[in-house]
Amino acid sequence: MADAPHDPGKRTALKIAALAGATTVGVGAVAGLVGGSDPKRRAGGGERAGAPAITGRAARELRLVTTWPKNFPGLGTGAQRFADRVTAITEGRLTVKLYAAGELVPAFECFDAVAQGNADMYHAAEYYWQGRSPAFNFFCAVPYGLIASEQNAWLRFGGGQELWDRVARPFNIKGLPCGNTGLQMGGWFKRPIRSLDDFRGLKIRMPGLGGELMRRLGATPVTKSGGELYQALDQGNIDATEWVGPWNDMSFGFHRIAKWYHWPGIHEPGSTLSVGINLDLWEDLRTAERVAVEAAAAAENDIMFAEYNQRNAEALARLVADPSVQLVRFPDPVMAAMAEAGAAVLETVARSDDANVRDVYRSFLDARTNIAKWGDIAERAFVAARALLP
Amino acid sequence: MADAPHDPGKRTALKIAALAGATTVGVGAVAGLVGGSDPKRRAGGGERAGAPAITGRAARELRLVTTWPKNFPGLGTGAQRFADRVTAITEGRLTVKLYAAGELVPAFECFDAVAQGNADMYHAAEYYWQGRSPAFNFFCAVPYGLIASEQNAWLRFGGGQELWDRVARPFNIKGLPCGNTGLQMGGWFKRPIRSLDDFRGLKIRMPGLGGELMRRLGATPVTKSGGELYQALDQGNIDATEWVGPWNDMSFGFHRIAKWYHWPGIHEPGSTLSVGINLDLWEDLRTAERVAVEAAAAAENDIMFAEYNQRNAEALARLVADPSVQLVRFPDPVMAAMAEAGAAVLETVARSDDANVRDVYRSFLDARTNIAKWGDIAERAFVAARALLP
Repeated sequence: MADAPHDPGKRTALKIAALAGATTVGVGAVAGLVGGSDPKRRAGGGERAGAPAITGRAARELRLVTTWPKNFPGLGTGAQRFADRVTAITEGRLTVKLYAAGELVPAFECFDAVAQGNADMYHAAEYYWQGRSPAFNFFCAVPYGLIASEQNAWLRFGGGQELWDRVARPFNIKGLPCGNTGLQMGGWFKRPIRSLDDFRGLKIRMPGLGGELMRRLGATPVTKSGGELYQALDQGNIDATEWVGPWNDMSFGFHRIAKWYHWPGIHEPGSTLSVGINLDLWEDLRTAERVAVEAAAAAENDIMFAEYNQRNAEALARLVADPSVQLVRFPDPVMAAMAEAGAAVLETVARSDDANVRDVYRSFLDARTNIAKWGDIAERAFVAARALLP
Repeated sequence: MADAPHDPGKRTALKIAALAGATTVGVGAVAGLVGGSDPKRRAGGGERAGAPAITGRAARELRLVTTWPKNFPGLGTGAQRFADRVTAITEGRLTVKLYAAGELVPAFECFDAVAQGNADMYHAAEYYWQGRSPAFNFFCAVPYGLIASEQNAWLRFGGGQELWDRVARPFNIKGLPCGNTGLQMGGWFKRPIRSLDDFRGLKIRMPGLGGELMRRLGATPVTKSGGELYQALDQGNIDATEWVGPWNDMSFGFHRIAKWYHWPGIHEPGSTLSVGINLDLWEDLRTAERVAVEAAAAAENDIMFAEYNQRNAEALARLVADPSVQLVRFPDPVMAAMAEAGAAVLETVARSDDANVRDVYRSFLDARTNIAKWGDIAERAFVAARALLP
């Protein structure tokens, strides 16, 4: 275990000794604190392969690897907030040290690093692990899937978290929602999409299932990391790209070379970010420590989504005022074709041999149907009513 | 200070002594952990009128008074989750004991109890305190206001929390968002609303600014507590009522005697619940304890809203399948009249002599305009696109 970065000194020791009168908390009192997440515990404590050495319950330093550049606005800064929040609320008993992508392991190796105990936790997007199981897509975002509030309802109270635990357990990972970037836009294009034909042969950076959807429209989906995008657009290696949303996109400057910003986005309706924890470690933590990590993650789930809504709204206002940027809706025939392609992409996932994948898909679709009906007569009907204000 | 409920014994004392090697966390590391909430600290520690006695940083028992019946589904159970979460993550250093409405103080006396230190925190809805300042309405819900995600963006990153701190400080209270019940429906009516005339003389239970809106439509708003509603409807003392939403409403059974369930609701588009803390206590807490309370509240903000979305969706499905319940939209002319009345109600609030009220109103309205524009081309446009799925 790494040394704690600060030397507490005598005053802290006295402070902590005074806590000898503190209350212990019964396990029953904390059951159900996060609605639906119910850790299955293995027997006993002691050392396991991949778990940090346990010595009399001293403080631990936890290595949090991330798939984001250092302090990337929103994604990276939110992961840092989560890390600092855990450290603060456990008063250092869990001291979380964050590593940006590439600092300890490359971004896409975060999953294995945590599974094998070479890191303790990751902050990432679960659809990065779709190669391990297509089920992982559903815990982040899928085309024509759930918006953030629907996803959260499904995960916490609709069975989603339990399915996630089932999918991740064999990989020795425990996952939790930890942020949301909200809706992803339709992308930056060098030439506007006027009809379905404009997708034929279009080289568009769009990973995962969104890319599969593009392929069905006749486009050529390309995989590139964030750092490569501007140059690829500039040099004509790609004709179009998506990235996150107005806030992050504007800072990358895509609008200077691909000024047609299409809406609505349909491939990532509400991207949930996640913290994934080495399962041996998770089960070795004390109840109070698990509750602390869950609370810190749930807090970030709330806060990052609020941040993206606010910053995206501000960026949108700037973008609309910028004459060099063209905000443009996809035409109706394109919307219809996208819907067909989106349904087909998800049905392909559903026809998996893996029972877990089929179970996740079915649960997810039930949620989509039922929660949408509530939203239609509730928030969406309200917003339409609000548009009548004089 | 009340005795801690559990006797930790020797093992815990040894455990805690071992933490003498633990890290202390620098204040800088925890700044900005909850995006926008920035406690102003008064000088020093020691005893203050209304703050619990501080003796060498021993554990505290915090009395959390609530405006809800014991274990009321969602509101009460969520408050209990918050209380238990704080206790768990601080390992009892802050042990929160929850009191239902009337157990320690009556519901509407929670604010004063906490301000004066006769309780330590409340869990409530800020619009209950509109008599102290109309500004409080905006931190919970106002007619034609913000939906939950918009409210959260405004509070956390749009200046809302800072304004809340400014409004609550003179009352010796620190407030934080701690839950959301989502959109409130249009109400249960014994006879359907077919035209604006049907509002004339209608005795409808609707408190606060929603009631003012009803008055402008010619109705007679009536104030009644939750426990009185069923009987009042049954005996004809009121002709209509709102309460919370499908989930909680169905358990009250209003549909048996007032079967016309109107939508959309416009008077409480996304009701934020809150925890309010005695400000002397808040400033006396250690940084780590403040971060713990903020994290626990933010977690509940995320989880309760997810719960209401899920349970309301489930209740709506049952309700739609129940032939004795009639789900019916308000007619267009009624929607137009409601919008006019809603705008007038808010403008009345805006013409306050109180500069704080005017500042809150202006900030809130800016948020409503800007965040709505983002939502229109983002989530709402996406959901419309999703409706095209084959």
